[in-house]
Amino acid sequence: MNIGITVIKSRRSVRSYRDATISEEIIHDALDCAALAPTALNAQPWLIGTVREKEMLRKIADLADYGKFIATAPVCFAIFGKRDEKYYLEDCSAATTQLILGLWAYGVGSCWVAGDKKGYAEEVRKLLGIPKTYTLISLVPAGYPAEVPTIQKKKREEILFSERFSAP
Amino acid sequence: MNIGITVIKSRRSVRSYRDATISEEIIHDALDCAALAPTALNAQPWLIGTVREKEMLRKIADLADYGKFIATAPVCFAIFGKRDEKYYLEDCSAATTQLILGLWAYGVGSCWVAGDKKGYAEEVRKLLGIPKTYTLISLVPAGYPAEVPTIQKKKREEILFSERFSAP
Repeated sequence: MNIGITVIKSRRSVRSYRDATISEEIIHDALDCAALAPTALNAQPWLIGTVREKEMLRKIADLADYGKFIATAPVCFAIFGKRDEKYYLEDCSAATTQLILGLWAYGVGSCWVAGDKKGYAEEVRKLLGIPKTYTLISLVPAGYPAEVPTIQKKKREEILFSERFSAP
Repeated sequence: MNIGITVIKSRRSVRSYRDATISEEIIHDALDCAALAPTALNAQPWLIGTVREKEMLRKIADLADYGKFIATAPVCFAIFGKRDEKYYLEDCSAATTQLILGLWAYGVGSCWVAGDKKGYAEEVRKLLGIPKTYTLISLVPAGYPAEVPTIQKKKREEILFSERFSAP
Protein backbone atom coordinates (compact mmCIF):
# COMPACT_ATOMS: atom_id res chain seq x y z
CA MET A 1 0.00 0.00 0.00
CA ASN A 2 1.28 3.45 -0.96
CA ILE A 3 1.41 5.55 2.23
CA GLY A 4 1.05 8.89 0.43
CA ILE A 5 -2.12 7.63 -1.24
CA THR A 6 -3.44 6.32 2.07
CA VAL A 7 -2.95 9.71 3.73
CA ILE A 8 -4.85 11.48 0.95
CA LYS A 9 -7.68 8.94 0.68
CA SER A 10 -8.27 8.55 4.41
CA ARG A 11 -8.63 12.28 5.19
CA ARG A 12 -12.02 13.36 6.52
CA SER A 13 -13.34 16.72 7.71
CA VAL A 14 -13.02 16.67 11.50
CA ARG A 15 -15.10 19.10 13.57
CA SER A 16 -14.72 17.55 17.01
CA TYR A 17 -11.37 17.56 18.81
CA ARG A 18 -9.70 15.94 21.79
CA ASP A 19 -8.28 18.23 24.45
CA ALA A 20 -4.65 17.69 23.42
CA THR A 21 -1.97 20.10 22.25
CA ILE A 22 -0.44 19.83 18.78
CA SER A 23 3.34 19.97 18.81
CA GLU A 24 5.27 22.84 17.29
CA GLU A 25 6.98 20.38 14.95
CA ILE A 26 3.67 19.28 13.46
CA ILE A 27 2.41 22.83 13.04
CA HIS A 28 5.74 23.83 11.49
CA ASP A 29 5.67 20.92 9.02
CA ALA A 30 2.04 21.47 8.06
CA LEU A 31 2.73 25.17 7.40
CA ASP A 32 5.65 24.19 5.18
CA CYS A 33 3.31 21.86 3.27
CA ALA A 34 0.96 24.81 2.70
CA ALA A 35 3.79 27.10 1.60
CA LEU A 36 5.00 24.52 -0.95
CA ALA A 37 1.63 24.32 -2.73
CA PRO A 38 1.51 24.79 -6.49
CA THR A 39 1.04 28.47 -7.35
CA ALA A 40 0.62 30.17 -10.72
CA LEU A 41 3.81 31.92 -11.88
CA ASN A 42 5.29 31.16 -8.43
CA ALA A 43 3.33 34.12 -7.01
CA GLN A 44 2.76 32.49 -3.57
CA PRO A 45 0.07 35.11 -2.94
CA TRP A 46 -0.69 34.13 0.65
CA LEU A 47 -0.36 35.05 4.30
CA ILE A 48 -0.94 32.17 6.70
CA GLY A 49 -1.68 32.71 10.36
CA THR A 50 -1.75 30.40 13.36
CA VAL A 51 -4.21 31.34 16.09
CA ARG A 52 -4.12 29.62 19.50
CA GLU A 53 -5.35 32.26 21.95
CA LYS A 54 -8.71 31.14 23.33
CA GLU A 55 -10.20 34.62 23.23
CA MET A 56 -9.33 35.09 19.54
CA LEU A 57 -10.56 31.58 18.64
CA ARG A 58 -13.88 32.46 20.25
CA LYS A 59 -14.15 35.77 18.37
CA ILE A 60 -13.52 34.04 15.04
CA ALA A 61 -15.98 31.28 15.92
CA ASP A 62 -18.65 33.86 16.75
CA LEU A 63 -18.26 35.37 13.27
CA ALA A 64 -18.18 32.12 11.24
CA ASP A 65 -21.73 30.84 10.65
CA TYR A 66 -20.61 27.28 9.90
CA GLY A 67 -17.49 27.43 12.06
CA LYS A 68 -18.78 27.60 15.63
CA PHE A 69 -16.56 24.61 16.51
CA ILE A 70 -13.48 26.80 15.91
CA ALA A 71 -13.89 27.83 19.58
CA THR A 72 -13.21 24.23 20.65
CA ALA A 73 -10.08 23.68 18.52
CA PRO A 74 -6.59 23.96 20.04
CA VAL A 75 -5.47 25.87 16.95
CA CYS A 76 -7.00 27.56 13.93
CA PHE A 77 -5.11 28.47 10.76
CA ALA A 78 -6.23 31.42 8.64
CA ILE A 79 -5.21 31.72 4.99
CA PHE A 80 -5.41 35.10 3.25
CA GLY A 81 -4.93 35.70 -0.48
CA LYS A 82 -3.54 38.74 -2.28
CA ARG A 83 -6.49 40.13 -4.22
CA ASP A 84 -4.54 41.53 -7.17
CA GLU A 85 -3.04 38.16 -8.11
CA LYS A 86 -5.19 36.61 -10.87
CA TYR A 87 -5.12 33.09 -9.40
CA TYR A 88 -5.13 33.88 -5.68
CA LEU A 89 -8.22 31.77 -5.07
CA GLU A 90 -6.79 28.68 -6.77
CA ASP A 91 -3.38 29.16 -5.15
CA CYS A 92 -4.76 29.65 -1.64
CA SER A 93 -7.11 26.70 -2.09
CA ALA A 94 -4.11 24.55 -3.03
CA ALA A 95 -2.26 25.81 0.06
CA THR A 96 -5.29 25.08 2.25
CA THR A 97 -5.50 21.54 0.85
CA GLN A 98 -1.81 20.90 1.48
CA LEU A 99 -2.09 22.30 5.01
CA ILE A 100 -4.99 19.95 5.76
CA LEU A 101 -3.15 16.94 4.30
CA GLY A 102 0.05 17.85 6.15
CA LEU A 103 -1.86 17.86 9.44
CA TRP A 104 -3.60 14.60 8.56
CA ALA A 105 -0.24 12.95 7.79
CA TYR A 106 0.37 13.35 11.55
CA GLY A 107 -3.11 12.17 12.50
CA VAL A 108 -4.34 15.70 13.18
CA GLY A 109 -7.87 16.33 11.97
CA SER A 110 -9.10 19.62 10.57
CA CYS A 111 -11.91 21.15 8.59
CA TRP A 112 -11.99 23.72 5.79
CA VAL A 113 -14.27 26.57 6.84
CA ALA A 114 -15.07 28.95 3.97
CA GLY A 115 -13.69 32.50 3.98
CA ASP A 116 -13.94 33.94 0.48
CA LYS A 117 -17.45 35.12 -0.45
CA LYS A 118 -18.43 35.10 3.24
CA GLY A 119 -19.79 38.22 4.94
CA TYR A 120 -17.38 37.75 7.85
CA ALA A 121 -14.21 37.66 5.67
CA GLU A 122 -13.61 41.37 6.17
CA GLU A 123 -14.18 41.21 9.92
CA VAL A 124 -11.71 38.34 10.35
CA ARG A 125 -9.18 40.26 8.25
CA LYS A 126 -9.46 43.27 10.57
CA LEU A 127 -9.41 41.11 13.68
CA LEU A 128 -6.05 39.60 12.66
CA GLY A 129 -4.54 42.89 11.47
CA ILE A 130 -4.13 41.78 7.84
CA PRO A 131 -3.50 44.48 5.18
CA LYS A 132 -6.45 45.44 2.94
CA THR A 133 -4.68 44.04 -0.12
CA TYR A 134 -5.44 40.54 1.21
CA THR A 135 -8.74 38.75 1.72
CA LEU A 136 -9.69 35.73 3.83
CA ILE A 137 -9.82 32.51 1.78
CA SER A 138 -10.16 29.83 4.45
CA LEU A 139 -10.16 29.05 8.15
CA VAL A 140 -8.78 25.67 9.21
CA PRO A 141 -9.45 24.68 12.84
CA ALA A 142 -7.41 21.60 13.79
CA GLY A 143 -6.93 19.10 16.58
CA TYR A 144 -6.64 15.40 17.32
CA PRO A 145 -9.99 13.89 16.30
CA ALA A 146 -12.58 13.07 18.94
CA GLU A 147 -14.42 11.36 16.11
CA VAL A 148 -13.86 10.86 12.40
CA PRO A 149 -17.04 11.07 10.36
CA THR A 150 -17.93 8.73 7.51
CA ILE A 151 -18.64 10.21 4.10
CA GLN A 152 -20.92 9.65 1.17
CA LYS A 153 -19.25 10.18 -2.16
CA LYS A 154 -20.59 10.21 -5.71
CA LYS A 155 -20.07 7.11 -7.84
CA ARG A 156 -17.05 7.10 -10.12
CA GLU A 157 -19.24 6.99 -13.24
CA GLU A 158 -20.99 10.20 -12.17
CA ILE A 159 -17.83 12.28 -12.13
CA LEU A 160 -15.15 10.57 -14.24
CA PHE A 161 -14.85 10.28 -18.00
CA SER A 162 -12.28 9.03 -20.47
CA GLU A 163 -11.30 10.89 -23.65
CA ARG A 164 -14.68 12.55 -24.16
CA PHE A 165 -17.68 13.13 -21.91
CA SER A 166 -20.99 11.42 -22.55
CA ALA A 167 -23.88 12.02 -20.18
CA PRO A 168 -24.74 9.04 -17.93
CA MET B 1 10.56 10.93 8.61
CA ASN B 2 6.84 11.15 7.93
CA ILE B 3 6.23 9.76 4.42
CA GLY B 4 3.02 11.73 3.86
CA ILE B 5 4.86 14.95 4.64
CA THR B 6 7.73 13.96 2.37
CA VAL B 7 5.36 13.38 -0.55
CA ILE B 8 3.77 16.80 -0.08
CA LYS B 9 7.01 18.72 0.47
CA SER B 10 8.95 17.10 -2.37
CA ARG B 11 6.37 17.77 -5.10
CA ARG B 12 7.48 20.03 -7.93
CA SER B 13 5.78 21.18 -11.12
CA VAL B 14 7.06 18.86 -13.85
CA ARG B 15 6.77 19.96 -17.50
CA SER B 16 9.13 17.46 -19.15
CA TYR B 17 8.24 13.76 -19.28
CA ARG B 18 9.91 10.44 -20.07
CA ASP B 19 8.34 8.34 -22.80
CA ALA B 20 6.77 5.82 -20.42
CA THR B 21 3.18 4.77 -19.87
CA ILE B 22 1.45 5.36 -16.52
CA SER B 23 -0.36 2.28 -15.25
CA GLU B 24 -4.14 2.13 -14.94
CA GLU B 25 -3.75 1.47 -11.21
CA ILE B 26 -1.89 4.74 -10.69
CA ILE B 27 -4.38 6.75 -12.76
CA HIS B 28 -7.25 5.10 -10.90
CA ASP B 29 -5.75 5.87 -7.49
CA ALA B 30 -4.91 9.47 -8.39
CA LEU B 31 -8.47 10.04 -9.63
CA ASP B 32 -9.80 8.65 -6.34
CA CYS B 33 -7.54 11.11 -4.49
CA ALA B 34 -9.09 13.95 -6.52
CA ALA B 35 -12.63 12.73 -5.89
CA LEU B 36 -11.99 12.57 -2.13
CA ALA B 37 -10.96 16.23 -1.87
CA PRO B 38 -12.66 18.46 0.68
CA THR B 39 -15.76 20.07 -0.83
CA ALA B 40 -18.18 22.60 0.65
CA LEU B 41 -21.48 21.00 1.75
CA ASN B 42 -20.26 17.78 0.09
CA ALA B 43 -21.28 19.22 -3.31
CA GLN B 44 -18.46 17.48 -5.24
CA PRO B 45 -19.13 19.91 -8.12
CA TRP B 46 -16.67 18.35 -10.60
CA LEU B 47 -16.25 16.32 -13.74
CA ILE B 48 -12.77 14.88 -14.20
CA GLY B 49 -11.56 13.62 -17.55
CA THR B 50 -8.54 11.57 -18.60
CA VAL B 51 -7.21 12.30 -22.08
CA ARG B 52 -4.61 10.01 -23.69
CA GLU B 53 -5.30 10.24 -27.43
CA LYS B 54 -2.37 12.01 -29.09
CA GLU B 55 -4.56 14.00 -31.44
CA MET B 56 -6.68 15.39 -28.57
CA LEU B 57 -3.60 16.14 -26.44
CA ARG B 58 -2.23 18.15 -29.35
CA LYS B 59 -5.49 20.09 -29.80
CA ILE B 60 -5.57 21.02 -26.11
CA ALA B 61 -1.87 21.96 -26.18
CA ASP B 62 -2.48 24.23 -29.17
CA LEU B 63 -5.15 26.10 -27.20
CA ALA B 64 -3.29 26.46 -23.89
CA ASP B 65 -0.86 29.39 -24.04
CA TYR B 66 1.28 28.16 -21.13
CA GLY B 67 0.54 24.47 -21.73
CA LYS B 68 2.27 23.63 -25.01
CA PHE B 69 4.01 20.72 -23.24
CA ILE B 70 0.62 19.00 -22.85
CA ALA B 71 1.30 17.57 -26.33
CA THR B 72 4.32 15.68 -24.95
CA ALA B 73 2.58 14.16 -21.90
CA PRO B 74 1.31 10.55 -21.95
CA VAL B 75 -1.86 11.71 -20.23
CA CYS B 76 -3.66 14.94 -19.40
CA PHE B 77 -6.40 15.30 -16.81
CA ALA B 78 -9.06 17.98 -17.20
CA ILE B 79 -11.10 19.18 -14.22
CA PHE B 80 -14.39 21.00 -14.79
CA GLY B 81 -16.46 22.76 -12.12
CA LYS B 82 -20.22 23.24 -11.88
CA ARG B 83 -20.72 26.98 -12.24
CA ASP B 84 -23.80 27.28 -10.05
CA GLU B 85 -22.09 25.87 -6.96
CA LYS B 86 -20.85 28.79 -4.82
CA TYR B 87 -17.48 27.19 -3.99
CA TYR B 88 -16.77 25.35 -7.27
CA LEU B 89 -13.42 27.09 -7.71
CA GLU B 90 -12.18 26.20 -4.22
CA ASP B 91 -13.52 22.64 -4.49
CA CYS B 92 -12.01 21.97 -7.92
CA SER B 93 -8.72 23.52 -6.82
CA ALA B 94 -8.66 21.12 -3.86
CA ALA B 95 -9.41 18.21 -6.22
CA THR B 96 -6.64 19.34 -8.59
CA THR B 97 -4.17 19.52 -5.69
CA GLN B 98 -5.09 16.04 -4.47
CA LEU B 99 -4.82 14.64 -8.01
CA ILE B 100 -1.33 16.12 -8.38
CA LEU B 101 -0.23 14.78 -4.96
CA GLY B 102 -1.75 11.35 -5.70
CA LEU B 103 0.31 11.13 -8.90
CA TRP B 104 3.43 12.33 -7.09
CA ALA B 105 2.96 9.67 -4.39
CA TYR B 106 3.73 7.22 -7.23
CA GLY B 107 6.61 9.29 -8.59
CA VAL B 108 4.54 10.67 -11.46
CA GLY B 109 5.18 14.34 -12.17
CA SER B 110 2.55 16.79 -13.33
CA CYS B 111 1.84 20.48 -13.67
CA TRP B 112 -1.23 22.59 -12.96
CA VAL B 113 -2.13 24.47 -16.13
CA ALA B 114 -4.76 27.18 -15.53
CA GLY B 115 -8.26 26.81 -16.95
CA ASP B 116 -10.60 29.21 -15.17
CA LYS B 117 -10.30 32.81 -16.37
CA LYS B 118 -8.50 31.62 -19.53
CA GLY B 119 -9.82 32.46 -22.98
CA TYR B 120 -9.47 28.82 -24.06
CA ALA B 121 -11.61 27.40 -21.21
CA GLU B 122 -14.73 27.43 -23.38
CA GLU B 123 -12.98 25.81 -26.34
CA VAL B 124 -11.60 22.97 -24.22
CA ARG B 125 -15.07 22.47 -22.76
CA LYS B 126 -16.57 22.07 -26.24
CA LEU B 127 -13.69 19.89 -27.42
CA LEU B 128 -14.35 17.40 -24.61
CA GLY B 129 -18.14 17.50 -24.93
CA ILE B 130 -18.75 18.90 -21.43
CA PRO B 131 -22.19 20.38 -20.63
CA LYS B 132 -22.45 24.20 -20.53
CA THR B 133 -23.24 24.12 -16.81
CA TYR B 134 -19.56 23.28 -16.21
CA THR B 135 -16.41 25.32 -16.82
CA LEU B 136 -12.76 24.31 -17.13
CA ILE B 137 -10.82 24.83 -13.88
CA SER B 138 -7.51 23.12 -14.58
CA LEU B 139 -5.54 20.94 -16.97
CA VAL B 140 -3.02 18.53 -15.45
CA PRO B 141 -0.59 16.92 -17.91
CA ALA B 142 1.34 14.10 -16.24
CA GLY B 143 4.18 11.67 -16.81
CA TYR B 144 7.33 10.25 -15.27
CA PRO B 145 9.70 13.21 -14.90
CA ALA B 146 12.51 13.73 -17.41
CA GLU B 147 13.70 16.39 -15.00
CA VAL B 148 12.51 17.83 -11.71
CA PRO B 149 13.04 21.58 -11.43
CA THR B 150 14.30 23.35 -8.33
CA ILE B 151 12.18 26.09 -6.79
CA GLN B 152 12.59 29.40 -5.09
CA LYS B 153 10.21 29.96 -2.23
CA LYS B 154 9.50 32.95 -0.06
CA LYS B 155 11.02 33.03 3.43
CA ARG B 156 8.82 31.82 6.27
CA GLU B 157 8.76 35.25 7.90
CA GLU B 158 7.34 36.77 4.71
CA ILE B 159 4.22 34.61 4.70
CA LEU B 160 3.63 33.22 8.20
CA PHE B 161 2.37 34.94 11.31
CA SER B 162 1.32 33.92 14.79
CA GLU B 163 -1.78 35.23 16.56
CA ARG B 164 -1.80 38.61 14.82
CA PHE B 165 -0.09 39.97 11.71
CA SER B 166 2.56 42.66 11.94
CA ALA B 167 4.22 43.87 8.75
CA PRO B 168 7.87 42.76 8.36
